[in-house]
Amino acid sequence: MAAATDGNATLSDLGEFGLIGRISDLAARTAPGEDVLVGPGDDAAVLRVRKGHVVMSTDLMVEGRHFRRDWSAAADVGHRAAAQNLSDINAMGGRAQWLTVGLAAPADLPAEWALDFTQGFAEECALVGAGLVGGDISQADQVVISVTVIGACAVSPVLRSGAEAGDVVAIHGRQGWAAGGLAVLGRGFRSPRVLVEAYRRPEPPYDAGPVAAESGATAMIDISDGLLADAGHLARASGVSIDITTGSFEVAEPLVAVGAAIGADPLQFILGGGDDHALLATFPPGPALPDGWTRIGTVSAAGDGPSVTVDGSAYDGPTGWSHF
Amino acid sequence: MAAATDGNATLSDLGEFGLIGRISDLAARTAPGEDVLVGPGDDAAVLRVRKGHVVMSTDLMVEGRHFRRDWSAAADVGHRAAAQNLSDINAMGGRAQWLTVGLAAPADLPAEWALDFTQGFAEECALVGAGLVGGDISQADQVVISVTVIGACAVSPVLRSGAEAGDVVAIHGRQGWAAGGLAVLGRGFRSPRVLVEAYRRPEPPYDAGPVAAESGATAMIDISDGLLADAGHLARASGVSIDITTGSFEVAEPLVAVGAAIGADPLQFILGGGDDHALLATFPPGPALPDGWTRIGTVSAAGDGPSVTVDGSAYDGPTGWSHF
Repeated sequence: MAAATDGNATLSDLGEFGLIGRISDLAARTAPGEDVLVGPGDDAAVLRVRKGHVVMSTDLMVEGRHFRRDWSAAADVGHRAAAQNLSDINAMGGRAQWLTVGLAAPADLPAEWALDFTQGFAEECALVGAGLVGGDISQADQVVISVTVIGACAVSPVLRSGAEAGDVVAIHGRQGWAAGGLAVLGRGFRSPRVLVEAYRRPEPPYDAGPVAAESGATAMIDISDGLLADAGHLARASGVSIDITTGSFEVAEPLVAVGAAIGADPLQFILGGGDDHALLATFPPGPALPDGWTRIGTVSAAGDGPSVTVDGSAYDGPTGWSHF
Repeated sequence: MAAATDGNATLSDLGEFGLIGRISDLAARTAPGEDVLVGPGDDAAVLRVRKGHVVMSTDLMVEGRHFRRDWSAAADVGHRAAAQNLSDINAMGGRAQWLTVGLAAPADLPAEWALDFTQGFAEECALVGAGLVGGDISQADQVVISVTVIGACAVSPVLRSGAEAGDVVAIHGRQGWAAGGLAVLGRGFRSPRVLVEAYRRPEPPYDAGPVAAESGATAMIDISDGLLADAGHLARASGVSIDITTGSFEVAEPLVAVGAAIGADPLQFILGGGDDHALLATFPPGPALPDGWTRIGTVSAAGDGPSVTVDGSAYDGPTGWSHF
């Protein structure tokens, strides 16, 4: 549903304080709880914390690099901007509580875009009960979105560095769908629609992180740079090696179809894709995995240094994304 | 002091993970405390909080709009980026604890710039004992910096909304110097140097916010949009009117000199300037003001609505800054 605004007004028409007012109205609906002691509109928000710690993370999204306005509606971009930050807290085994947004945008950006973005953002936050409590806006040559989230963990946070030889590597959530959708959009198509939608609005498994933490996960990361790239981050942080077994993936039919259409191995989307915000975690070998987790590999001692292999060998396909 | 890097390397040469590594090294020096349970390098930082609340704020700085690389060194921009966020916590009467930085920048930005920026940022944080605990980087067409800070207040946060008729309006910190410096730079000059330096590296009165809170300040704001503009924010939030007495300002000699040189009333820098991050607060009329605060005006009932007047009359000079 679009946030109503005055026809074709731009940010310049609405003005800084007009825009802040409208965004604050939308934000206020996301954070009605008694724990928001002061919401948007002062020098800072004041937020009650019930644990003796906070987890805190910041992510950027840049127009033309992380999204295109002709590929995603404003509300989609809002959903994704929130999702990728909420996912970082999920990957610590935590629950997100409060977010701020910095929105830099050209003066001729339709005001509707900024408001629809905010509404999509707020809807995604509502999925986990988190509130938008502040932010800033500025003029810039392109849209740059910066989101910061804080939250808390009920048990000890699950770091990237806790994996041990003998652990099981497991995944929770769709993987490769968003990459398939992006490949489709990049070739000027709009279907399979289910993949395009997966790219536009990822569905991170928000409950899976805290459950994994309570179930004894030894290390965890959200897959945002690509499955193999993020497995590499985890392996290096833990000082271990990881082998991924491709036979453990059920390659979904839409991915098979896109692979056939563009002449690519659909496994490439799964191994290299990073926009679904699935969770990758390691668990001790003994007990059964929590619900929804699929075993996809094993952890071994680092040997000559931390490494990630695929079916026992080095992988020579695309493995992820670098920002420079 | 410049952060060492490899000659003329750009961000593109250094690469995403190279840059993150270097920035994390600099950041780690700012946050050595036992309260940083997990620092940069995981999905989120984990931070011990000792109060039952956090104060949280986000600010953007955009190249060409908030700073120019030919007017300010990278370290200066780092100092300012930190200062404007630390100042928001100051204006709540709080003390800043942890910050994250999102840095979007062109691939051909010298890596030295990003590292010097980080070093300046870290040095400013060190003035209040706050730590840089995380962030994100991305490629973009221009440099966009997004900073989020969290902190805590020892006593109740001082909001914008608590001023009452009869209160005294007071200021703490240099006011108008940065605006004078900006006016000088905008005309292609580099002196008076003291004003240019005031613009490049503001010196917010970091201790004054918590002291004002403990001394019973009824409302407070940091002056970032301009003295009259921010007085207006405070007046509207409190539902009061504010009158500023220009005779209460001692117009510093460098401001007089610049005013004479460019044919402007130097009061214009004081009334319209917003880059010094001085504090504006209201106090009950009775007791003496805390050290360092100067009485500059009075609070009265709103009458026909909240307003800000200067020496009893509407002011028709420039009153501040709008981002769109």
